Amino acid sequence: MKQTPHQEMIIVDGLQYSNWDRSIFQHLLTGGVTAVHVTITYWENTVETLQNIGKWNRLFVQHADLIMPVKTADDIRLAKRLGKVGIIFGFQNCSPIGDNIDLVEIFYDLNVRFMQLTYNNQTLLASGCYEDRDSGITRFGKVVIQEMNRVGMLIDMSHSGEKSTLQAIELSSRPITISHANPHFFEPALRNKSNTVLKALAQSGGMLGFSAYPLHLHNGSDCTLTEFCTMIAQTVELIGIDHVGIGTDLCVNHDYSVLKWMRSGRWTKETDYGEGSATNSGWPAPLTWLEDSSGFPNITQGLLDIGFNQEETAKIMGQNWLTFFEESFTPADQAELHIASPQAAYDMQNA
Amino acid sequence: MKQTPHQEMIIVDGLQYSNWDRSIFQHLLTGGVTAVHVTITYWENTVETLQNIGKWNRLFVQHADLIMPVKTADDIRLAKRLGKVGIIFGFQNCSPIGDNIDLVEIFYDLNVRFMQLTYNNQTLLASGCYEDRDSGITRFGKVVIQEMNRVGMLIDMSHSGEKSTLQAIELSSRPITISHANPHFFEPALRNKSNTVLKALAQSGGMLGFSAYPLHLHNGSDCTLTEFCTMIAQTVELIGIDHVGIGTDLCVNHDYSVLKWMRSGRWTKETDYGEGSATNSGWPAPLTWLEDSSGFPNITQGLLDIGFNQEETAKIMGQNWLTFFEESFTPADQAELHIASPQAAYDMQNA
Repeated sequence: MKQTPHQEMIIVDGLQYSNWDRSIFQHLLTGGVTAVHVTITYWENTVETLQNIGKWNRLFVQHADLIMPVKTADDIRLAKRLGKVGIIFGFQNCSPIGDNIDLVEIFYDLNVRFMQLTYNNQTLLASGCYEDRDSGITRFGKVVIQEMNRVGMLIDMSHSGEKSTLQAIELSSRPITISHANPHFFEPALRNKSNTVLKALAQSGGMLGFSAYPLHLHNGSDCTLTEFCTMIAQTVELIGIDHVGIGTDLCVNHDYSVLKWMRSGRWTKETDYGEGSATNSGWPAPLTWLEDSSGFPNITQGLLDIGFNQEETAKIMGQNWLTFFEESFTPADQAELHIASPQAAYDMQNA
Repeated sequence: MKQTPHQEMIIVDGLQYSNWDRSIFQHLLTGGVTAVHVTITYWENTVETLQNIGKWNRLFVQHADLIMPVKTADDIRLAKRLGKVGIIFGFQNCSPIGDNIDLVEIFYDLNVRFMQLTYNNQTLLASGCYEDRDSGITRFGKVVIQEMNRVGMLIDMSHSGEKSTLQAIELSSRPITISHANPHFFEPALRNKSNTVLKALAQSGGMLGFSAYPLHLHNGSDCTLTEFCTMIAQTVELIGIDHVGIGTDLCVNHDYSVLKWMRSGRWTKETDYGEGSATNSGWPAPLTWLEDSSGFPNITQGLLDIGFNQEETAKIMGQNWLTFFEESFTPADQAELHIASPQAAYDMQNA
């Protein structure tokens, strides 16, 4: 049977935090998603994060017919061949490393490939997007950026302040990402990004993942597929076709307690409303064209309909992420290869 | 230049806890040691253990010309070819996993290949060799043994009580190890093992590493090389040639505070003397023939002198460990391979 253009593509979701179970993995497969960056941590400390990774390790065994872990870009190609969904680990906060730089490499060894320097608030590394003042990258932040560059862990500034984000782009020797946010010109949410940030990101070789979280969208849950795809087209005009992808921020099947944890963690006794407000505090209603991951083919169709050709659409739907991961997930220094894979280093020496 | 028999052999030290630095790595190279099981943890909890692994990761970068991490038996062969020392991580206690079974796999992913179920005292898993009563393997201990069997982490009973050790041998579906201890018939220390234990260990395919720690030896620090090698010969008569190796328990360059930590951790306010006593509380004087790892060729020579042929000597000096690791360090189930190495599983399916 001939495959649709969508089915032929490598599809990557740049961020998702759903209430993972078999049905959600099946949505991903139905939607033709080849790989998804999943959030492991919001506020969890080191040990709690290990427990979350432990839960994922159980899921890999229980659902080995549907999902597989991703350590490298090649693993995503393998997932495509095997008809499975590749799972890429990431942190939305730097809480797992505490004040210990060595934990960057340790979590990399446990397959963590993204880490946000901040999640809304000031951290030991940088300022969050909801702080009144953005003091930029801290002393610890500067060396953590170097360490992330060294081991091959992506710096993700989705929830960071503008100054911190621009500084991270400047300080990082490798391109960084904003895995799930939209242009501020589309919807003036605090989480969305200025043209200045978007241009600096793209010029440095970084990647933006367009968010489908209603509070990041014009008209919220009523945002149409055409509006979403028009936003993508306008952004491509601004920063080019090679630096954009999808990062849905889908949060499927979570109850309110999880949203409360994401927003308030244990840092405040008050209720923090994050991107919502006191009168609009719950989960936003889902988009009709992306209730869950099975809606992914709609985005492909929307991009084709708005005038992107098939090659351009494939880039946006996953190929750009794949190329970016190829460059990002390996250790910076060939010498480091010896640590990660002595055999590969030996083969290289003797090639 | 023709190599000596010792230089041609793969030499494995089944346990060492030295105060690691460049000079000690050079002793290992001078001594022709191909791989050494190094202790990461005595009483450290999860986070402290990650910090210790982080320190090792720095050593791997700083001394990449001398040492390399070992994940598989093949890595030991690679170390031999590269002229480096392979480093195998192990815990002398189960404190790093706390009460969380998922941490077994997580530490395996961080290259930990040995874990003792106990260190002298009762743990959540089993009874230590210095407890008055040995209640055997606990409920948690039983499932941890299964989990260690599943992922490919060696069960090490060097510091456990007799009943716990016999039960671990019985319960484990894969051979286990006593990485550093001697036969009780040679020296009646509480840490040394009865003939019953040694026979059960060997019959189940397990491995004994002979300790060169003076308090495990007849005549202590005055034990001669000939006495040490005679002990090995007598043990081989008892349990065969295929189940014995060396596990020196060398602790080079540590001051008394480290010995205090090893013995008393933070579990007692009193001073515990471990294998020593109030009148003999310090580090024992080193053996003249094995002050540090550069003395390893003496053991090879001692075994040849006492009548082992070259093949037998090679087995004792490291080949037996290598064969044992080959069988022990891989996941039990082929299905698990898919988790550890999706590419390898794919290749297998399509071979």
